[in-house]
Amino acid sequence: MSELRWDARLREWVIVAPHRQERTYHPVGWCPLCPGGGDTELPTSDFEIAVFENRFASMRTDGPVPPLLAGSDAAAGGTARQACASYGRCEVVVYTPEHEGSLGALPLERVESLIRVWAHRYDALSGVDGIRYVFIFENRGEEIGVTLPHPHGQIYAYPFVPPYAQRELAIEAEHFSRTGRCLHCDLIEAECASGERVLIDDGNVAAYVPYAAHWTYEVHIALRRHHASLLDLNTAERRSLAAALKSVLQAYDRLFGRPMPYMLSVRQKATAGGAHEGAHLRIELLPALRTSDKLKFRAGSETFMGVYINDVLPEDAAADLRKVL
Amino acid sequence: MSELRWDARLREWVIVAPHRQERTYHPVGWCPLCPGGGDTELPTSDFEIAVFENRFASMRTDGPVPPLLAGSDAAAGGTARQACASYGRCEVVVYTPEHEGSLGALPLERVESLIRVWAHRYDALSGVDGIRYVFIFENRGEEIGVTLPHPHGQIYAYPFVPPYAQRELAIEAEHFSRTGRCLHCDLIEAECASGERVLIDDGNVAAYVPYAAHWTYEVHIALRRHHASLLDLNTAERRSLAAALKSVLQAYDRLFGRPMPYMLSVRQKATAGGAHEGAHLRIELLPALRTSDKLKFRAGSETFMGVYINDVLPEDAAADLRKVL
Repeated sequence: MSELRWDARLREWVIVAPHRQERTYHPVGWCPLCPGGGDTELPTSDFEIAVFENRFASMRTDGPVPPLLAGSDAAAGGTARQACASYGRCEVVVYTPEHEGSLGALPLERVESLIRVWAHRYDALSGVDGIRYVFIFENRGEEIGVTLPHPHGQIYAYPFVPPYAQRELAIEAEHFSRTGRCLHCDLIEAECASGERVLIDDGNVAAYVPYAAHWTYEVHIALRRHHASLLDLNTAERRSLAAALKSVLQAYDRLFGRPMPYMLSVRQKATAGGAHEGAHLRIELLPALRTSDKLKFRAGSETFMGVYINDVLPEDAAADLRKVL
Repeated sequence: MSELRWDARLREWVIVAPHRQERTYHPVGWCPLCPGGGDTELPTSDFEIAVFENRFASMRTDGPVPPLLAGSDAAAGGTARQACASYGRCEVVVYTPEHEGSLGALPLERVESLIRVWAHRYDALSGVDGIRYVFIFENRGEEIGVTLPHPHGQIYAYPFVPPYAQRELAIEAEHFSRTGRCLHCDLIEAECASGERVLIDDGNVAAYVPYAAHWTYEVHIALRRHHASLLDLNTAERRSLAAALKSVLQAYDRLFGRPMPYMLSVRQKATAGGAHEGAHLRIELLPALRTSDKLKFRAGSETFMGVYINDVLPEDAAADLRKVL
């Protein structure tokens, strides 16, 4: 079974999941995400989008919430070894019954449906006992470790606020309490006003390469209005978000004439309930290629120190992407 | 030219270094780190270890310290775009004139010399105007992006305290002020007392898989006595550290019968001068293989959230490594 171990050095939880060593790895001739096959997760093909628990989940809600997690903030100061069952939820979101394809290649309506599915799962998982952060994401491409090419994303419902989210939350809250404004509203408005790195801006949604992009062709797709989560979207905004996401993902694939490996994250309020001052809904995209045949690696500086080196000027990255939008 | 851009969203600096797109990439038939060739950095082979400035440096001390950096803490709260010349230093440390080989395969005396070289550069770079953190590291293996196989490491002298170091520093200082003890001393003693994950402990130096290892075969090599930096080592301790490092790196290469790609970091006080309560000298090793043919990828959970999933129980990883020590 998986466990959570408390790292007293960094004051964060690590998931230890030995059974995942045996997880399905680039299967040949079959796909667990294709409907109706032998060892499939999906007995029927009669669906548009399917969500189910990951067979090789690193967190599960089998038992009660471990007492340690309820007190995880209190545990922060100690050096004692602390561990508990890996409580939480890992879900797989299959975007289509079709094995070939990608999120960017789906019809616009399907991308809109996916955003509705995300909102639904965000709301539902937020209500699960002990869940403190719902993280919606996609890893795409074997270059970044994806072992199943069938178009799909994932959702992790953590029983703690993850370290990077904690840090972001602290910055957002400090900015809000000092200025009375949402940090992201300020940054998004500045990006749209300058326009230098903007790819799309339809009034509802803006897509841009951020001023201090960490990754070469990093793109953020942000709501122009202050929305804390997917639950706040109206129909027009959802359509704008879907259209911008589809456009950027298609541009990624055109950029180097090959499928762009990327990581996608939906950033929003930690859970549908509770306080999270200054959260602002957006999608962040981190593509892994820095040229047509070179991957961006995170080595010593990025890994140990958190200092990113970006090899392309963000204004040039935006210009490159505009040509293939 | 490179620049530093302030990311107001994460309150950290990003290095934008477009000229690095053109850096030497897996050269065939020549090596810029081999002595005496055509386009070499090293005109002579009459050396044991050589240190020089990186030709494709992402930070340089060409000009004066940009005023913005002196006030980088003050800048923290703003959303304004802020950038300056990428001030700092990037050095290459060539371990040997020989093209073939690796740090772990060097004679023990050479590894000891390297530790003396590290200490010397740490001291010298700490004294450079505007430098606030000296980071000694090695990236090894093309699997993690290394483009020159000649055995070498690197040193980055940053004009700011990097984000992850800042976080560690805050935890160390809090622990010290609350308990009067060094956090790492406590953790190292606990590891040695339990022994479950210890690989080496000769009284001067302990090498172990940490209790909450983030990476599958992660190993920390720590000084048993409280030393803040490389400058505090005595001769016996330096020899112990060199011997433990060599042993662990050789074990890595034996583990899967192939050269183990890894990242190495020397963790210590930010610079030789200044206050850094609770820093404790150690070497951290993050190997990139989780099985003989599978890399550990950092995808969505690790990248966006900082939540690591480790596929091997740290006690099992220690047992695997002990077999090949």
